Amino acid sequence: MSQISVRQEILALKAYVPGLSIAEIQQKYNLAQVIKMASNENPLGMPPLAREAVQRHADMGFRYPQGGNPRLVEALAKRHGLDPRRVVVGNGSDEIIDLLIRILAEPGVHNLVCFEPCFSIYPIQGRISGVEVRRHPLNADFSFDFDGLLSKVDANTRLVFITTPDNPTGYCPPRDEVAQLAAKLAQIAPACLLVIDEAYMDFAESEPDSSLLASGELPENTAFMRTFSKSFGLAGMRVGYGILPPSLADYCWRARLPFSVNILAEEAALAALEDTTFYSFTMQTVRQGRNALTVGLTALGCNVWPSAANFILFSLPENTLSAHDCFETLLRKGIIIRPLNSYNLPGHLRVSIGNEAENRTFLLAMDEILLQNRHAEASAANRECK
Amino acid sequence: MSQISVRQEILALKAYVPGLSIAEIQQKYNLAQVIKMASNENPLGMPPLAREAVQRHADMGFRYPQGGNPRLVEALAKRHGLDPRRVVVGNGSDEIIDLLIRILAEPGVHNLVCFEPCFSIYPIQGRISGVEVRRHPLNADFSFDFDGLLSKVDANTRLVFITTPDNPTGYCPPRDEVAQLAAKLAQIAPACLLVIDEAYMDFAESEPDSSLLASGELPENTAFMRTFSKSFGLAGMRVGYGILPPSLADYCWRARLPFSVNILAEEAALAALEDTTFYSFTMQTVRQGRNALTVGLTALGCNVWPSAANFILFSLPENTLSAHDCFETLLRKGIIIRPLNSYNLPGHLRVSIGNEAENRTFLLAMDEILLQNRHAEASAANRECK
Repeated sequence: MSQISVRQEILALKAYVPGLSIAEIQQKYNLAQVIKMASNENPLGMPPLAREAVQRHADMGFRYPQGGNPRLVEALAKRHGLDPRRVVVGNGSDEIIDLLIRILAEPGVHNLVCFEPCFSIYPIQGRISGVEVRRHPLNADFSFDFDGLLSKVDANTRLVFITTPDNPTGYCPPRDEVAQLAAKLAQIAPACLLVIDEAYMDFAESEPDSSLLASGELPENTAFMRTFSKSFGLAGMRVGYGILPPSLADYCWRARLPFSVNILAEEAALAALEDTTFYSFTMQTVRQGRNALTVGLTALGCNVWPSAANFILFSLPENTLSAHDCFETLLRKGIIIRPLNSYNLPGHLRVSIGNEAENRTFLLAMDEILLQNRHAEASAANRECK
Repeated sequence: MSQISVRQEILALKAYVPGLSIAEIQQKYNLAQVIKMASNENPLGMPPLAREAVQRHADMGFRYPQGGNPRLVEALAKRHGLDPRRVVVGNGSDEIIDLLIRILAEPGVHNLVCFEPCFSIYPIQGRISGVEVRRHPLNADFSFDFDGLLSKVDANTRLVFITTPDNPTGYCPPRDEVAQLAAKLAQIAPACLLVIDEAYMDFAESEPDSSLLASGELPENTAFMRTFSKSFGLAGMRVGYGILPPSLADYCWRARLPFSVNILAEEAALAALEDTTFYSFTMQTVRQGRNALTVGLTALGCNVWPSAANFILFSLPENTLSAHDCFETLLRKGIIIRPLNSYNLPGHLRVSIGNEAENRTFLLAMDEILLQNRHAEASAANRECK
């Protein structure tokens, strides 16, 4: 290996940092039970119809999936009331994000634009592809400065990425603002694609008011990302999809690895689309839980940002422990949430909405941690006074 | 979409052509039963232990897989008696092939070298990555001209790909020749990686005599590809792996999409490694079937190439129907094999080894087709004489 060298972009790469797994934490802290509220998974688990479909079709695991995933494409086109030629299915929307960068941006020539912080797959895949990544900061309140974002765009920009509702902040811009962004971008950079990642859109208070995809008005320069990982409860099955301009979708299919979606994942996704009971209960659970966690954390003195997603961004009361220490203390209590160092937000934490019991356990643990910390501080202050 | 344009390499891309699926053919020809011998899948289906594992863990489909797939990495390292830091797991070996090209080759600068014909993912992923693809023809008997291959290598070559046993020819070069290729390559191009794709190596008459990986002597400039799609019966689950120099493996993990291997696929792969009964029966079935098909097709006047894999390359007797017509006639009889136009071998056909009943049905159908064709020709000759 001595003389085989990897590309500069890869040498410099900071890899994606996933949430910790339950098994890791059980082992590390010798815990019988661990709650995971770190990766925005579905708080209800796997949809029952999807689980049954996987079990029923398990025998088919030795067959390659059908090229082009036609059944799933058809079902998704029907769900969104759109031309099936617009639909691309992938190994999570991650794969489609990567494909779009590879298809549209010439390495060393073109650039992509996204916010800072944002879902880290956009800049990581850009860098792997040798494409310059230009970032514009979020506003101080974590809302979107679209004009600032556009100021980073030039004639060599081929992709602009936004996530709505946003990860890790939960912010959801009004639909009209997103439509205006698309229109302005078409004017200043006609060769540039606006990628609107709606991974968490199902959880918005009103999807029709927030989603440009749901409005049915798809500007010619936009691509929408959706996923089965969150509302459909299939994170581990790895199925996402894009709604793209038809000719671009065609090129994605040609460039996609031919069998990247597992044959049982396709069956699970088809079944999850049918499991409307599970989907409705998910919506109810996430919205109630989001409210309970917002109220609970606020009551504990935390600063909680309004969220339209299935997670909440918060920071701890001032003059208390650090976000890192809070994260570590929760781990030792068997609760995994998400530290945000990899998003350059080391003072913030992200917690995924759990089920009712998980949310309660988490709030109780936070209460304990913050109370103990106040006691410790009070003692320290007492000692100093003496 | 009017003004959004894809890269030149993508515009020119010929996509991978997968084998037809059973569902497609059932629908097209209105058939109750269809036999698929087109994609080198396992003739025995899914390993029973893997099926059980999938069913048992189906509930876990809502969780993201653990980053780095440590359990599967450990199991594979143990199987091959190697350092786990050498192992990379991917969404089929396809993903690892793509990753290696992206990591090592600078778009527009470096090149890769492979045979013509070869497994089409190498040149396709090279082109998608903007890397020049240089090809050297196989010998007339489909054996490997390694010196010719090396003649294509220059200072900008970063990867050389070979498949052993080869797809679609079944040819398996002696292990020593592969070792010599690696040694010569290290001398003339020290920065170049030799990728040895051993996807079909389990099926060789003697794996120890044919596999450089099995020999335990891994030259520093080599990477080995293996897969769960063939001998382990998990084509639809999408799990492959690479055995790489450790530092290169580390960069692959950093650059790989974090969750590309489905959580149930990982469980299935772990279980398949344990299912030694299934594995042994697969080996026996494939070797017996390979012999039966070779003898049967030869008896029908076909030209059959010696194969060390779970498929056979053959051509039809002279002065009979075309390979394309034979393929189409088999389809109408409910038997899918693989035409080789996409490999630039339009006069050849590839048939995957089936189970005993499938092999028999295929040979009977071939007998009928060739007999009918002889009758038709005889009548035509008679008419011409009159």
